[in-house]
Amino acid sequence: MAVGKPTFPEMHPVAGFRLGTTAAGIKKPGRKDLVIMAFDEAATVAATFTRNAFCAAPVQIARDNLVKGSPRFLVTNTGNANAGTGERGLADARRVCEALAELAGCRPEQVLPYSTGVIGEPLPVEKILEGLPAALQACTEDGWRDAGEGIMTTDTRPKGASRRLSLGGKRVTITGIAKGAGMIKPNMATMLGYIATDAGASKLELKQMLTSAMNRSFNRITIDGDTSTNDAVSLVATGLSGAAIGDDNRAEFQAALDAVCRELAQGVIRDGEGATKFVTVQVEGGRDGREALAVAYTVAESPLVKTALFASDPNWGRILAAVGRAGLHELDVNRVSIWLGEVLIAERGGRADTYTEQAGQAVMDEEEITIRIHLGRGDASETVWTSDLSHDYVRINAEYRT
Amino acid sequence: MAVGKPTFPEMHPVAGFRLGTTAAGIKKPGRKDLVIMAFDEAATVAATFTRNAFCAAPVQIARDNLVKGSPRFLVTNTGNANAGTGERGLADARRVCEALAELAGCRPEQVLPYSTGVIGEPLPVEKILEGLPAALQACTEDGWRDAGEGIMTTDTRPKGASRRLSLGGKRVTITGIAKGAGMIKPNMATMLGYIATDAGASKLELKQMLTSAMNRSFNRITIDGDTSTNDAVSLVATGLSGAAIGDDNRAEFQAALDAVCRELAQGVIRDGEGATKFVTVQVEGGRDGREALAVAYTVAESPLVKTALFASDPNWGRILAAVGRAGLHELDVNRVSIWLGEVLIAERGGRADTYTEQAGQAVMDEEEITIRIHLGRGDASETVWTSDLSHDYVRINAEYRT
Repeated sequence: MAVGKPTFPEMHPVAGFRLGTTAAGIKKPGRKDLVIMAFDEAATVAATFTRNAFCAAPVQIARDNLVKGSPRFLVTNTGNANAGTGERGLADARRVCEALAELAGCRPEQVLPYSTGVIGEPLPVEKILEGLPAALQACTEDGWRDAGEGIMTTDTRPKGASRRLSLGGKRVTITGIAKGAGMIKPNMATMLGYIATDAGASKLELKQMLTSAMNRSFNRITIDGDTSTNDAVSLVATGLSGAAIGDDNRAEFQAALDAVCRELAQGVIRDGEGATKFVTVQVEGGRDGREALAVAYTVAESPLVKTALFASDPNWGRILAAVGRAGLHELDVNRVSIWLGEVLIAERGGRADTYTEQAGQAVMDEEEITIRIHLGRGDASETVWTSDLSHDYVRINAEYRT
Repeated sequence: MAVGKPTFPEMHPVAGFRLGTTAAGIKKPGRKDLVIMAFDEAATVAATFTRNAFCAAPVQIARDNLVKGSPRFLVTNTGNANAGTGERGLADARRVCEALAELAGCRPEQVLPYSTGVIGEPLPVEKILEGLPAALQACTEDGWRDAGEGIMTTDTRPKGASRRLSLGGKRVTITGIAKGAGMIKPNMATMLGYIATDAGASKLELKQMLTSAMNRSFNRITIDGDTSTNDAVSLVATGLSGAAIGDDNRAEFQAALDAVCRELAQGVIRDGEGATKFVTVQVEGGRDGREALAVAYTVAESPLVKTALFASDPNWGRILAAVGRAGLHELDVNRVSIWLGEVLIAERGGRADTYTEQAGQAVMDEEEITIRIHLGRGDASETVWTSDLSHDYVRINAEYRT
């Protein structure tokens, strides 16, 4: 189950960024599960990784290699997360990097590894090594769709986004794919994102732009610091468009990058495990962003709110209770207003006089729902996206691995 | 569904504490839904209430009345929480207090009101007022079982606990009932607890003992500050046993009070919505209690851990991932060890060499499961209790109110 139609957008190729996908038999025979992304040494790379203390072996290696060298390859396997695998996991991830480096004629530290799937099982290295030649062979600038499928785990569909813009008279492309699934806290399933652009940028600049985009997209479907063992979002800039990002066009590029990241992040939510609703939680009037975010997450993650959303039940009392336990200092509940879509449901500590069950029900019957909360104590606002809690969520997560 | 057999213990009456229950037709005709507890003015009363900013009208009134006066009655209705009801809710709760005071011949501020049920609907005051005479009439020291049933909402069975001890040669009784349900965070459903003793204690002493007991029971199935709109646990000491609590016997009384509270709190978990497992999460080796508790809650509330528990799947990687995202400063994962029951499943950052799936499966097949985590960085320990996340949890919470 997922929210909305499974449309995959037109994916504009990014000059100098090639993707190759194969079925290495890691999960099931014939299932695409191994993806290589290739680019030249001149490209710059930025990435953000999970903050989980138990970060997976590939995350440790990728983080180290990113600092060390000039990456040329990203290699991703699904079916096994290579997490909680200790020293052996590190050795296994290194073997994959070494094998690809040997095949491609580069140094092992020029390869960044990524894994997603079951935690705590040894990585089936041999299968991956056997699959590398075919994946490398398949590399093409038109490989986005296959790669989008190749990184899926419990995802029901690939997620892609692509934008073109003109920078200083030159056409620039930003294209990306992501995988997610998991729902109550989407971050708890591994989230992987890969975005490439043919604009040129320094490493520092690229990192700053990625961080900024993350805080309006992937980091707004996940709690700060509350990540899975394998989460990673990577951004590669090949520079082959001839357009360089600078002071005169940075804002424009950032807006397009934000849009791509937001579309991918929302795609992760729409395909959340068992999701039947796409929910936007918008909090306004906070003293600062931190408290607006705290309220947004408390509402978005409340199992009682989420089951009410699944049932299309305008049980606004559950929203109100969630706002009340978000831990805000001296919250005056009499100044709080709450809307379902355009319908004012609560104000002055109770149900709004104008509210009718019928009006609330009409909003809840929609597949896309916005919950808007005004705290009445400042100017800060934050938005997070989430989904509902359905029977299928329990089914998928109880059956996964069995 | 609930864990273990629905046994209700022998409830020793508490001298001077009477309970009367009736069916006032608030929820359904014939369903016990109104409970009065009565005691003399000489009794001392302590209570802890929700920290939710949107605390319900009865909580505000009960808190005020507890400070003002010498309580003589606790009155509880189910079927309606009188929360999120603004000024009208306060007026409604006051009317209930006034009506009971008039019937019983006391001052309105000697009545503490409690409500649980749907949030945001006006309290059906008339039905409650009509039910008061019968409930008052029914008051008896043997009324515990009926009262235990009268306070239930989505609970599938009443929860009671009773202990007797000898203090300075005098027989002292501690008896209590509780209601709960709700599961992912048990606190998100209203939790009510009522405990009475015929020991004598000052108000301050009683409050300190209740707080201490809470931190080993009800507050270990709930996050600090993360409470529903109506939570309340109350302790009444009638003093009629003739035994007074003092320095020479305080520890003994506290231990018995702790045991009663723990049994009630665990009863709430065993009857959690859709619960099929009773899970103890025991964290040792923390630098301080705060971090031990953070790890315990992160594991106990992880939807992925909870669905694995429901599936009896020894997916220890999910436990490890939860420990890793609990936010501990500089956690050295190589010093962390994790056990399922007596089976060591993870150490040194990965699966234990001695671990077998078969051994893990044998523990997971049990109805009662202990997850033990040693952090290897200090001496602090904490224990919390939780249950699993089942299909029935979603069904109950999606259907409630419809």
